[in-house]
Amino acid sequence: MIKMTKINEYVLQTLSYGVYIISSCFNGKLNAQLANIVFQVTAEPERIAVGIHKDNLTHEYIGKSGVLAVSVISESAPMNYILPFGFKSGRDVNKLVNISFKIGTTGCPILTEHTLSAIEAKVTKKLDIGTHTLFIANIIDTISLGKGTPLTYLEYHNRKGKTPKNAPTYRHAKTIS
Amino acid sequence: MIKMTKINEYVLQTLSYGVYIISSCFNGKLNAQLANIVFQVTAEPERIAVGIHKDNLTHEYIGKSGVLAVSVISESAPMNYILPFGFKSGRDVNKLVNISFKIGTTGCPILTEHTLSAIEAKVTKKLDIGTHTLFIANIIDTISLGKGTPLTYLEYHNRKGKTPKNAPTYRHAKTIS
Repeated sequence: MIKMTKINEYVLQTLSYGVYIISSCFNGKLNAQLANIVFQVTAEPERIAVGIHKDNLTHEYIGKSGVLAVSVISESAPMNYILPFGFKSGRDVNKLVNISFKIGTTGCPILTEHTLSAIEAKVTKKLDIGTHTLFIANIIDTISLGKGTPLTYLEYHNRKGKTPKNAPTYRHAKTIS
Repeated sequence: MIKMTKINEYVLQTLSYGVYIISSCFNGKLNAQLANIVFQVTAEPERIAVGIHKDNLTHEYIGKSGVLAVSVISESAPMNYILPFGFKSGRDVNKLVNISFKIGTTGCPILTEHTLSAIEAKVTKKLDIGTHTLFIANIIDTISLGKGTPLTYLEYHNRKGKTPKNAPTYRHAKTIS
């Protein structure tokens, strides 16, 4: 029998992540959200995993259309650019108003400001992991938008970036309305 | 029909990862390997995803025992400490000879040098993603070993760290024997 012990949240914070805007589209409608769970999981074929909370509109769109795009945020992006993607729901507001973007191969929006690159992918598998779904998706296109350093989750937190309540790494931080 | 386009590897390199030693145990035997796919995927319960190549001995041990440990490597770790975990197979050599470690709650080895923290977890689901398996595992214990900055995959590459051939992010880099 394995002993249950208290989990030290400092330890969980030593895992490294990037900061991404995940977008999707369904039936002509677009949405985008802040996320940190994007990682390449196989090299042949080039395939990523993306974790999205089941309550989110982006989850609904990815589930219905089977496509998504990942915009990789630059370290130079201001916090007031990033935060609205994480603390508002696309069900309440159009988060893409006043945001520069282009439509990619998949039909998903790709941010063109404060963004280093983007990856477009087509879902091949979904894994139910409780509060979230892990979408496994083959990369079908990549877009290079500029040179720079990708924003890490550590740096985001150093700048007092809050964690949205639907994040896998939610730590009972106060959300902003 | 979605147009197939050439994938730009520079773009894939803008995704952020940490650098970890993943260990497992089976029937009293221990093994450990270099990996970069470790992500917290849900907060309730606290659950991680770990990606491991199917050919690896660690994959075999995790599959058989259902337990694993993640040692989070410090930025101050020398490359000659890290690299042998990625470029030798536990089938050929005992990678833990001359390495300081302790046995955790799960029975898996946890590194105690050049390591900031460790996470022990019990597998609840496995997802076949082609060359790799994604193990979804509930965190059952955490160990804090010291303060410091976690080594990122970007920093690892800046120090000319090579990518083992079984890595999900393998780029036809030369391996060292």
